[in-house]
Amino acid sequence: MGSGEVKISGWVNSLRIVGAVAFLEVMDGGSLQLYTVVIKRHEHPELWNLATHMKIGSAVTVKGSIPSGQISKRGLEVRAYALNLLSEPIDFMPLDPSGKTPALLDTILEHRYVALRIPRQRALFAIRALVVEAVRNYFKSLGFLEVHTPKICGAGAEGGATLFQLDYFGRVAYLAQSPQLYKQMLMCGFSRIYEISPYFRAEPFSTVRHLNESWGIDAEMAFIEGPQDVMRVLEDLIVHVFEYLKAKGQREFSELGINLQVPRKPFKRVTYNEALEILRSRGYNIEWGQDLGSDEERVLGESMVEEGYDAYFITEYPWHAKPFYIMRKKEESESFDLDYRGMELASGGQREHRYDKLVENLRDKGLSIENFEFYLKAFKYGMPPHGGFGLGLDRLVMTLTGVQNIREVVLFPRDRQRLLP
Amino acid sequence: MGSGEVKISGWVNSLRIVGAVAFLEVMDGGSLQLYTVVIKRHEHPELWNLATHMKIGSAVTVKGSIPSGQISKRGLEVRAYALNLLSEPIDFMPLDPSGKTPALLDTILEHRYVALRIPRQRALFAIRALVVEAVRNYFKSLGFLEVHTPKICGAGAEGGATLFQLDYFGRVAYLAQSPQLYKQMLMCGFSRIYEISPYFRAEPFSTVRHLNESWGIDAEMAFIEGPQDVMRVLEDLIVHVFEYLKAKGQREFSELGINLQVPRKPFKRVTYNEALEILRSRGYNIEWGQDLGSDEERVLGESMVEEGYDAYFITEYPWHAKPFYIMRKKEESESFDLDYRGMELASGGQREHRYDKLVENLRDKGLSIENFEFYLKAFKYGMPPHGGFGLGLDRLVMTLTGVQNIREVVLFPRDRQRLLP
Repeated sequence: MGSGEVKISGWVNSLRIVGAVAFLEVMDGGSLQLYTVVIKRHEHPELWNLATHMKIGSAVTVKGSIPSGQISKRGLEVRAYALNLLSEPIDFMPLDPSGKTPALLDTILEHRYVALRIPRQRALFAIRALVVEAVRNYFKSLGFLEVHTPKICGAGAEGGATLFQLDYFGRVAYLAQSPQLYKQMLMCGFSRIYEISPYFRAEPFSTVRHLNESWGIDAEMAFIEGPQDVMRVLEDLIVHVFEYLKAKGQREFSELGINLQVPRKPFKRVTYNEALEILRSRGYNIEWGQDLGSDEERVLGESMVEEGYDAYFITEYPWHAKPFYIMRKKEESESFDLDYRGMELASGGQREHRYDKLVENLRDKGLSIENFEFYLKAFKYGMPPHGGFGLGLDRLVMTLTGVQNIREVVLFPRDRQRLLP
Repeated sequence: MGSGEVKISGWVNSLRIVGAVAFLEVMDGGSLQLYTVVIKRHEHPELWNLATHMKIGSAVTVKGSIPSGQISKRGLEVRAYALNLLSEPIDFMPLDPSGKTPALLDTILEHRYVALRIPRQRALFAIRALVVEAVRNYFKSLGFLEVHTPKICGAGAEGGATLFQLDYFGRVAYLAQSPQLYKQMLMCGFSRIYEISPYFRAEPFSTVRHLNESWGIDAEMAFIEGPQDVMRVLEDLIVHVFEYLKAKGQREFSELGINLQVPRKPFKRVTYNEALEILRSRGYNIEWGQDLGSDEERVLGESMVEEGYDAYFITEYPWHAKPFYIMRKKEESESFDLDYRGMELASGGQREHRYDKLVENLRDKGLSIENFEFYLKAFKYGMPPHGGFGLGLDRLVMTLTGVQNIREVVLFPRDRQRLLP
């Protein structure tokens, strides 16, 4: 095929007949490009006959030429000279694949595979793929090694209540709620690692920001001087992802009607104590030591946006509100959360690398030393100071795409009710 | 620091004192580079004192200069002017991190984090990371979209016996034994996808080639004309990975003492019937319809190597030996396995995309239509012809590195006995 010629393999999203001309809107399955296929009765009577009897939703291949040779954003016009019907729907379409009649989220989730023919839906998942690509580029440029840690574990990082349990050849095992313990153990041999992998939480959430199965971006780095080293890596990662997406996701963001704003660097840093003061000044009284609820997160986010910060760190949380592995600093901790306009995207900090202190931390949290023996052992052989973070991939994609429900950016979400499809 | 200056953050693998000169072998945690740090008593008495009392396994930072300015393959010599002790072992080292005294595999698996300081061990995992990078580059160049499908599922692809079961808010759920059903459902909206993710099999294996948790490379493509379209993509992927690793993994393969041979393209294609004949001629009689055992795989592999083929496809397996979703061709199937020197690396084929035939296939295999309702539904809305493959990442890395036990290339392997660390 010469330039100006095209082969489309995709699905018929709509059919319009105007006099003796048929217009088929066809979504290509590979390029994610939408075409308007034009067939004139007098030019191709046999194609006209096939086209005008075509069921919406059919899988077809089309060969044709692009008269102007121009590439427009969507609905690129093609004069067909070949049309092939590969597969027809055998039931009514559950939703309008052209997207002109909007579908309910529940319908989309029930028929995700069909919904993916809607340009907006495709854009969300194309952006998701670009995000993981951007994350990997970034880590590679800093010399972080990609690793794979186990998802079936003998113990959980944060206690038993939030773990899915399974029978493992007669022993009790758990699904990983994060790679936390493993990425720390690896700090005894590799000093910069990352993993992008699924994690599982058995909490009976019912919110638009939580799922029971999610994908996370986990990084850990050794030989740090303090949590600020980790925060800088995370901050640069976020900015890199925004910049990369702005450059490579133009078509997708224009489909979503979004003009992506790269957050300003350095992100604002507020201590937990400063956050409490800001909240107090806005009528929210939090007792010291309490975690921020979603209302408080929202209000703090508004105050940050007023100051010109979309993204900000909340540092030095009370130690008792943080997991055992975080380094203690009297009553506070070497921890941070990264929030974006009131939504927590990541959390991390410097970890306790000194064996004796770590055992003390476990005891303080009322956890069993015996259960964590396999993990503690790694701290006996020259464990360097280290820290890291866990960043929610699903939430990061939510943030970039502006969707209101995390389920929109996950192909087959898992929540309390949803185990199928 | 100018050129010729270096900052090392890593672990002391060995200490040697020759007269008034101390030699510390230090493995950098990030660059995976090994250094010989030289300290002379009369030049730096305080560093000498620290170095000569250093415990093997300690985490240190070193600043120094490289006298020659030359970069050698390992043990690059550094004259230290600063040495900092960050963390000392509090127990005997469980293995020799210099690798000079070899450790048993069981010891390595028990203390993987320490074993990673051995140059050979690091090389294995650096190669693993390069493999996934190569795989992604390849799929990106062909326009395959990266997706994430659920690992907690309401049904398994290949029946119940090999599934890990868990309680999902009062319902029975299973861990994904592959993304098979989900990647097929997606063929109704995207036409080229891939996923690299963990999968889980509850089979009580005890072999050097099987684990209960593995990582897989799964791809699926629509609008194909036959299984040969999929085989070509897989064949090119394997060759790309070998070529990429040959170019980017020089240091690692030289550490392993391997001169990587890129397999010749096109890979040999033998039908199942031809394979039986080859086996018969070598004294192995397999009844038609039986799967090949590991002995037969080995013998067939030897015969292929004699013909000059490391990698080869076995096509057209008896349909009754293949899963329900493979397209049937009378008593045979549109399937293929990819073997490398007698080890199965991948399997795939064209899938059945026609609703009625698929229901028939399920019935033929004695599977419940009701359990697969959520999957069957996707075949009602214009499912195009499609096919794909699942390629074992762990086995691919085994093949490249020549290790004899799959556990060597998995950081924290999961087998019948091993749930910790």
